[in-house]
Amino acid sequence: MLRIALAQMEVIPGRPDLNTRTMLTMIEKARRQQAQVIIFPEMSIPGYLLGDTWEQQAFLRDCEEHGRLIIKASTDLCVFFGNVGIDWSKIGDDGRVRKYNAFFIAQNGRLHKNENFPYPFRIKTLHPNYREFDDTRHFYSLLKLAPEIGKSVGDLLQPVHLNIGGKSYKFGCILCEDGWSEDYSVKPIAAIHRNGPVNLFINISASPFTIGKNNKRNRVFSKQVKDTGTPLIYVNNVGIQNNGKTVYTFDGFSTMYNGKGEITAYCPPFESTLKCVDLALADDGERHPPVPVPDDQDISAIYQALYYGIGKFLRIIGMKRVVIGISGGIDSAVSAALYTKILGPENTLLVNMPSIYNSQTTRDLAAKLAQNLGCQYTVIPIQEAVDLTVKQISQTPVVNLKDSRQFNLEVTSFTTENIQARDRSARILAGLASAFGGGFICNANKSEMTVGYSTLYGDHAGFLAALADLWKHQIYSLARYLNEHIYNRDVIPQKTIDIVPSAELSFDQDVEQGKGDPIIYPYHDYLFRAFMEHWHRATPEDILEWYKEGVLEEKIGCRPGMAARLFPTASEFITDLERWWILYTGMAVAKRIQAPPVLAVSRRAYGFDHRESQNGPYFTAKYLRLKEQILHSLHEYK
Amino acid sequence: MLRIALAQMEVIPGRPDLNTRTMLTMIEKARRQQAQVIIFPEMSIPGYLLGDTWEQQAFLRDCEEHGRLIIKASTDLCVFFGNVGIDWSKIGDDGRVRKYNAFFIAQNGRLHKNENFPYPFRIKTLHPNYREFDDTRHFYSLLKLAPEIGKSVGDLLQPVHLNIGGKSYKFGCILCEDGWSEDYSVKPIAAIHRNGPVNLFINISASPFTIGKNNKRNRVFSKQVKDTGTPLIYVNNVGIQNNGKTVYTFDGFSTMYNGKGEITAYCPPFESTLKCVDLALADDGERHPPVPVPDDQDISAIYQALYYGIGKFLRIIGMKRVVIGISGGIDSAVSAALYTKILGPENTLLVNMPSIYNSQTTRDLAAKLAQNLGCQYTVIPIQEAVDLTVKQISQTPVVNLKDSRQFNLEVTSFTTENIQARDRSARILAGLASAFGGGFICNANKSEMTVGYSTLYGDHAGFLAALADLWKHQIYSLARYLNEHIYNRDVIPQKTIDIVPSAELSFDQDVEQGKGDPIIYPYHDYLFRAFMEHWHRATPEDILEWYKEGVLEEKIGCRPGMAARLFPTASEFITDLERWWILYTGMAVAKRIQAPPVLAVSRRAYGFDHRESQNGPYFTAKYLRLKEQILHSLHEYK
Repeated sequence: MLRIALAQMEVIPGRPDLNTRTMLTMIEKARRQQAQVIIFPEMSIPGYLLGDTWEQQAFLRDCEEHGRLIIKASTDLCVFFGNVGIDWSKIGDDGRVRKYNAFFIAQNGRLHKNENFPYPFRIKTLHPNYREFDDTRHFYSLLKLAPEIGKSVGDLLQPVHLNIGGKSYKFGCILCEDGWSEDYSVKPIAAIHRNGPVNLFINISASPFTIGKNNKRNRVFSKQVKDTGTPLIYVNNVGIQNNGKTVYTFDGFSTMYNGKGEITAYCPPFESTLKCVDLALADDGERHPPVPVPDDQDISAIYQALYYGIGKFLRIIGMKRVVIGISGGIDSAVSAALYTKILGPENTLLVNMPSIYNSQTTRDLAAKLAQNLGCQYTVIPIQEAVDLTVKQISQTPVVNLKDSRQFNLEVTSFTTENIQARDRSARILAGLASAFGGGFICNANKSEMTVGYSTLYGDHAGFLAALADLWKHQIYSLARYLNEHIYNRDVIPQKTIDIVPSAELSFDQDVEQGKGDPIIYPYHDYLFRAFMEHWHRATPEDILEWYKEGVLEEKIGCRPGMAARLFPTASEFITDLERWWILYTGMAVAKRIQAPPVLAVSRRAYGFDHRESQNGPYFTAKYLRLKEQILHSLHEYK
Repeated sequence: MLRIALAQMEVIPGRPDLNTRTMLTMIEKARRQQAQVIIFPEMSIPGYLLGDTWEQQAFLRDCEEHGRLIIKASTDLCVFFGNVGIDWSKIGDDGRVRKYNAFFIAQNGRLHKNENFPYPFRIKTLHPNYREFDDTRHFYSLLKLAPEIGKSVGDLLQPVHLNIGGKSYKFGCILCEDGWSEDYSVKPIAAIHRNGPVNLFINISASPFTIGKNNKRNRVFSKQVKDTGTPLIYVNNVGIQNNGKTVYTFDGFSTMYNGKGEITAYCPPFESTLKCVDLALADDGERHPPVPVPDDQDISAIYQALYYGIGKFLRIIGMKRVVIGISGGIDSAVSAALYTKILGPENTLLVNMPSIYNSQTTRDLAAKLAQNLGCQYTVIPIQEAVDLTVKQISQTPVVNLKDSRQFNLEVTSFTTENIQARDRSARILAGLASAFGGGFICNANKSEMTVGYSTLYGDHAGFLAALADLWKHQIYSLARYLNEHIYNRDVIPQKTIDIVPSAELSFDQDVEQGKGDPIIYPYHDYLFRAFMEHWHRATPEDILEWYKEGVLEEKIGCRPGMAARLFPTASEFITDLERWWILYTGMAVAKRIQAPPVLAVSRRAYGFDHRESQNGPYFTAKYLRLKEQILHSLHEYK
């Protein structure tokens, strides 16, 4: 029997000092619980998402220095931890000092050295290089090291031999992606198993939450365990980390799998915790019965991630109060309910900023929401300032200094719409936030973000876009969830949920007449999701192909018959498709470049997770032929 | 003798259709000039910086389709070109279809197949993974392919055997980074040479401009040629490409090196051009005398890149007119002079937006600048709107809906400063730009961008930050260069160059009294450069170490004795150092996340080139000891 402490710590990125302090406290706690081994997550000392901080040698030395404090503390228990492993005598492919994403083992106040590896630590074999990950930018992998030192990858993937409490053990020590090897030609677990077998696999990770990911971890890891018949302990951190444009929550969910692939223990998600487990190894039989694990696929998991992520983000940037513009619509209502829960109504200032285009209905809904939440509330009309702006722009003469002729500029209704949006955010919200001693938030959802249905420096602005990874239908689910499960009453007025979504920037968007956004969410949410989140990103070519084959709704996941209902002719279907594709790959990219950080919950979030260039829209040759064929050869197909 | 056409084309990223059209035109032109071989740059069909467009299978098929058109055109000359090479039967490490950054050779209307390589194209061996590059995210390298198919890297780096005009040739075909192998353990040129020798090395590239880079290319490539004794042709594209946050110009500078490492021909930078060279191979002796190549290290090269980059960027986003806020200061004056040169004075609207804090001096300088440039000009004061905003925020009561108590918010002078900046940009400039039918630009320089000395949605806003990769001292150089070499007269008034730089947002920044920015550019420009551009990024630990050792100015490159002159005591030096470090790694990061795209000219530009997380400031343990030592043990050292 081996007593192992799973140290699901909150890793604070870029703070070796604070992380080391947390680790020392957890080591002390584990010691009191008679643990023989304590396991910390990947990169537990430096944090994982640090951008190019890895290029600061002073930071690297500091990580080593803090690592020595952990090693020193390993007097009567064995400490497994993650840190950057540095070879000061070698360089990486970028010419800077060689860095490894490393797995350290300390015992008796010293680093455990193993005869079968060139360093006093193990290194990550597989480097993720998709989504938000940038491992290959900073670290040298085992795949690169092996040929360099004339070894095979298999030679280097050896078990770690340790003597603990007088007994001899073999551990398979891997890091995060090493356990997700399906798409790689090298399989670290299988390779170590061949060089073993081992008593236990240990996967230390820094694995961000995304919806449904823990379900997947359990499927993937259970299968690995079944393949080798060896128990596995997975230790992941909690906290949040970001790469500027995208903020990730880390859910932890550290888990122990027995040799049959069953889960016998797990740490609760989004909670810094130390869990001791008694590992039954070959010699003393299986002791732990399997435990059920919560599903993380539904709206409650999203709420949990948002609540946790927003709270942590506010703490990181030192913000204690927020200002939220509320329109009476659904997005701002959900934001208000969420932030009020996190910061308390005394620290949440809601403001309604009507112009002549805002209906009495939505103004009343805004007031009612504020009342329901018991927040700080004010109403600041924008019409006077908007009129002044329009007047200044249209009535101040411009002089052409080549010929001294004067002329006046014209302000169109489109320009006036954007003037209103900017007046609300950059003039009122930003000023109010500063006076209130906080920041103001961006209420944008993912559907708007996809096609840039927002005004830059207007409703697109804010210090965080916490809802920008949720499609509009998810915003509605979240609204219902907040009312039913978090507040247990209708804090978000039912009418806000029922009313047609509208920006109310002109009389053409009059909600009293049922007029609203040009986005038809029950269809476009799914179309946009196909562009953005599908594994093989869908393009107009794919969409049109599916439309032609009659499988569109099935492929994108919206209700059957939707396209035919919305678009009586193929020509209308195509016009709509091209309109949004042009926005998605055109103006919306320019807006996203200047968007606030997005809090990621989906499998693909805007920002660093979805890298994009401002190259303008493109239609493939095949799309153009298909369109031609549908419009002309087939005459209004379907 | 072999006649080779260097096709230094403008590659338009994400436009296989347009690039293929350009290539067909160039092939036709080369044919008329009796070229036997034409060489296009790396990724000449798709473009190079495309973000995650590589995940669209429709786009990949489109690249293949356009590639076939080029292959078909290779009837009577041999076409070397870059495209994505796809193995639809395999996957990459991300689980998506396998893609290679590939070198294609077409002859007689067919792809040239070689017995010694598994694909009908060659692939890139070394994938850059630093600065703006993301090759490993999208493409599978030769380094990964070799072990997968049971070959050594050396086995796969074989010469390409071609029969041209009845003669047999061996070519060493490499892509971009393959020629920059100093920091890699694999050296493609040496490996091919060992499997050769070859008659000619051909490096097809997509290599962005940065200051002094062509000088370096010539040093690096000349040396390679000398090492092998083999001529080399380097073909690079022109145009611009971006990854959202950072925009790169591509200077071309395609070059032929003879077997002695001398440059015998090169294409002019930033120009789409086809250059035919007659290559003297072993059998017919050396014909071309060396030619001198211009230096690309000085301000004229920066001007050239800015002029080219801004013009191309405007064309890509379809913008024909711009609005520029001019304050009478240096940054906006340089912007105005630059954009006027690019778009013409009729398409450039300059606007001065005074408040009560703007001096008569700077208002007059703004008017004079506009006059000198002959632009469209207007003056729109902001005081009325600023007063209205302050009044609305401070006089509209806020109600606490828990207890119905009302209170008023207070507007501090700091808040008022930011209200002014946002009023200018988000209210006036954005509205004016829309009415003028264009966009407005951001005048920020790199020094301001480093420490966030700007207001978000205020002077930080705009569709492009074209000067944000230039330190303040480079802005001054550019001002003088514009006057002396581009306009040949003082379009930028001398007084604008001489006056103290100031934001003029309060009476504390009164230029008439010589008061201005808190940044002391002759020192801080260099301090910030050490943080940002030094190879091993400098941190307070390094700076303090250098200060203690008396080598600070030498290390950071500012004038000797600067620190002692500015900071009489070590305590003052440290206070200043920490102030800016905290801003650089704190609030400035938040601002950069929402910054406009930056046009890169330096070796390290903000945006995707310098990846950063919003983690807040950190001081290493060693820094804290050093500070303690200097402040206390040594009592006011120095």
